Amino acid sequence: MFSQPPCLPEDDDENPIDEIKRAIAAEDGSALLAAAEDSHYADLAALYEELNDGERDFFFKTIGPELATDVVAELPYTLIEDSLKHFKPAQLRVLLGNLSDDDRVDIFQVVSEKAQVRFFSLLGPRDKELTKNLLKYEEDTAGGRMTTHVGRITGDMTVKQALAVLRRDREDAETLSRIFVVDVQGRLVGKVRLRDLAFNTWDTPIRDIMQDADEYILASADQEDAALTLSKYDLIVLPVVDEFHHFLGVITHDDALEIMQEESTEDIEKLAGIGGEQTELSYLNTTSTRHYRRRVIWLVGLAFVSIASGYVMYRFNGVLQKAYVLSLFLPMVVAAGGNAGGQAATMVIRALALGEIAPGSALRIAWKEARTGIFLGLTLGMAIAAFIAFILPHFHPPAPQSFSFIRLSFAVAAAITLQVLSSTVLGALLPITARAIKLDPAVVSAPSLASIVDVSGMLIYFGTAAAILEL
Amino acid sequence: MFSQPPCLPEDDDENPIDEIKRAIAAEDGSALLAAAEDSHYADLAALYEELNDGERDFFFKTIGPELATDVVAELPYTLIEDSLKHFKPAQLRVLLGNLSDDDRVDIFQVVSEKAQVRFFSLLGPRDKELTKNLLKYEEDTAGGRMTTHVGRITGDMTVKQALAVLRRDREDAETLSRIFVVDVQGRLVGKVRLRDLAFNTWDTPIRDIMQDADEYILASADQEDAALTLSKYDLIVLPVVDEFHHFLGVITHDDALEIMQEESTEDIEKLAGIGGEQTELSYLNTTSTRHYRRRVIWLVGLAFVSIASGYVMYRFNGVLQKAYVLSLFLPMVVAAGGNAGGQAATMVIRALALGEIAPGSALRIAWKEARTGIFLGLTLGMAIAAFIAFILPHFHPPAPQSFSFIRLSFAVAAAITLQVLSSTVLGALLPITARAIKLDPAVVSAPSLASIVDVSGMLIYFGTAAAILEL
Repeated sequence: MFSQPPCLPEDDDENPIDEIKRAIAAEDGSALLAAAEDSHYADLAALYEELNDGERDFFFKTIGPELATDVVAELPYTLIEDSLKHFKPAQLRVLLGNLSDDDRVDIFQVVSEKAQVRFFSLLGPRDKELTKNLLKYEEDTAGGRMTTHVGRITGDMTVKQALAVLRRDREDAETLSRIFVVDVQGRLVGKVRLRDLAFNTWDTPIRDIMQDADEYILASADQEDAALTLSKYDLIVLPVVDEFHHFLGVITHDDALEIMQEESTEDIEKLAGIGGEQTELSYLNTTSTRHYRRRVIWLVGLAFVSIASGYVMYRFNGVLQKAYVLSLFLPMVVAAGGNAGGQAATMVIRALALGEIAPGSALRIAWKEARTGIFLGLTLGMAIAAFIAFILPHFHPPAPQSFSFIRLSFAVAAAITLQVLSSTVLGALLPITARAIKLDPAVVSAPSLASIVDVSGMLIYFGTAAAILEL
Repeated sequence: MFSQPPCLPEDDDENPIDEIKRAIAAEDGSALLAAAEDSHYADLAALYEELNDGERDFFFKTIGPELATDVVAELPYTLIEDSLKHFKPAQLRVLLGNLSDDDRVDIFQVVSEKAQVRFFSLLGPRDKELTKNLLKYEEDTAGGRMTTHVGRITGDMTVKQALAVLRRDREDAETLSRIFVVDVQGRLVGKVRLRDLAFNTWDTPIRDIMQDADEYILASADQEDAALTLSKYDLIVLPVVDEFHHFLGVITHDDALEIMQEESTEDIEKLAGIGGEQTELSYLNTTSTRHYRRRVIWLVGLAFVSIASGYVMYRFNGVLQKAYVLSLFLPMVVAAGGNAGGQAATMVIRALALGEIAPGSALRIAWKEARTGIFLGLTLGMAIAAFIAFILPHFHPPAPQSFSFIRLSFAVAAAITLQVLSSTVLGALLPITARAIKLDPAVVSAPSLASIVDVSGMLIYFGTAAAILEL
């Protein structure tokens, strides 16, 4: 799907990023500066990841604190503290002052405590106050994610007065697409669009052209709720309020995209049994050691869990010995449970993440999955029964066994139907239960579910076979 | 994470959606209309899904074509054709005319051919032309997703002239946050922000205040590339151009969010072996039959694949009989491969989806995964060897076996190390290979990978055991 670069460089223009690489290699400061000023900070941040320590130093020294601010704000969290070591205190003071308040708070939230104290001492008094206020909110809440740089006017102003106020912060504000109207206590009372100001006469009172600000979110709410609200109502910005409805700031559309990407990646990784803190580093920039650490716990834990399946198999060795042919279908019955359970769990976890279902619907979900599971189980059972009854005899020697192929087909079909049905329902209910007891539904990873239904699959298979085949 | 509704209704105000439900039950048209006008169309669309056919009819009759347009545009694709049956031709003509052009094209792309012809005959001449042009682009390309309702001016205008042009389309344009500047041939040459117009004198030429439009995308590019570009550069709108750089329209920030959600859901589902077209219906509104259809093919296909594992097990029955104790660790070795391979595949598929890696990096990825895999395999091998050598003897009776626990621990550890290493590398390389031959990397679902490495796991386990234990 990503088969060409999203933005083709102009044909007549060399790619500035390649120029920068060359300038760094040649230690040509003026060429580097010129090319850097031609580039988008997002591209510069991606380039920065590839540089070694000496090159990073030269890079930051050359591009100056203005551009460096944008690049630092765009870096993965794991690189930020290290990147700030390249600046002298005076430069750092400028850089920290230039940062937008939400980016500054993000940085404070990820650096070491020692760095926090040092950076804090470099802030101006207004920024100190603001940063302290924003640090109250957890990193993954709406309050921790919001920016306070936003157009803010009162209802008793005229369009002319409002424009004068906005003119003052026009370059500071992250967006003027939506401007929020507050009362004298600073409570959110409405919103106007810049176009309403631009296209109305100067003496129109704001009160007359403002709309209700129906969509808003509490600062303490989860960042994922904020992103879902922005998405549902197609908003550019979502106002954030405290419990007294004071207007605190906004979550912007690009925050929402970032939050959605983070949360999707997290869910996808958890589903595959990858643990630990998600890094913001790209795949290739993450070290093997780190990849190892994020995977090893689940891998070892699940391995020991599967000794339980081994134990069941060990105990039923007698059955297997009486009819070798059963081993032909053992992996199938076991795997079908893991697959069916994984499918059900995935559907439910995604539906929970998108806010489509709530734990209260557990019964309806179980009923839907039970119906789906019985259809799936019967289909699979009948297919496999047909295979055993009609196709297997052509390949399998008439073994010294005490039962017919028809009877074997009944036994295997019954086992696989039971296994698929029970795994599907279990796969759907486990994430719901996790959510109901306030755990992340994605802890029910597909591999852990598979380990559980492996055990039930062995028991169902050997139990059914022993009963139907009278072994 | 979604523990409270994102938008709390005002305390003093009853939730309008509940009012609507009551009004529909009581067939109270005026109460329904009043409450509907108080609601957001996204909430109305969610409510619509829950209504039965008679209620839907009453709902659309009452709220009138204006509001109905917004609701229809917000419905899941699967419900749209049915929803339009509730309108008479005259109403339908109004509704189709009211739709924004990208929504109208989306609708044409999902309804039956018969409906397409009928709807097309109801369009005005300008809309006919526009719709035909937009239908040229595939549904999942930037061109198929863009809207043409956007501010568009030329560089030789003054601010005053530009404002006059924009005033005309001010309610039509999806956003005036970015206004694009074209030359006389209609080629994209720059962009201005509404704030630049609002805060500059009326005689300023646009040429003097416009910025370069560096970020743009070809109409034929994949919609996912458009979303990634919007996300990377934090854009509100991304201009779409044809191969001659003519400005065609824009992809907006809310499109990007929707695209990201769709693509993430698709990847998550494919990873779990869920096939077929993703429905836009929410989980509970999707029928069991549909859930069944999306899962059954993978489930049955994978079941038959796992007969291969069964066959390996069947062939090695002799080894198993000579040493029952081997069955204790058979599920572990097999499952560890599926788990390790699934983790590696998931990391690589996500990195490919986010544009972090390209197939050209295959060697670097293989090397990184080989290192990660050998560490993982050795850790697991050593853990399991310690278990077999020191803990198992306390539980296991001194069976009549021809080898010591120490030797058994070597055999199992060697097998699991080999299995984890080979599965990790295979799990990483399969999605890369799929991408390289232009397939969707997510076709390498975790379950299908598990089925493959089940076979290799059985072979490795029995082979290693037979060799080291001399069975």
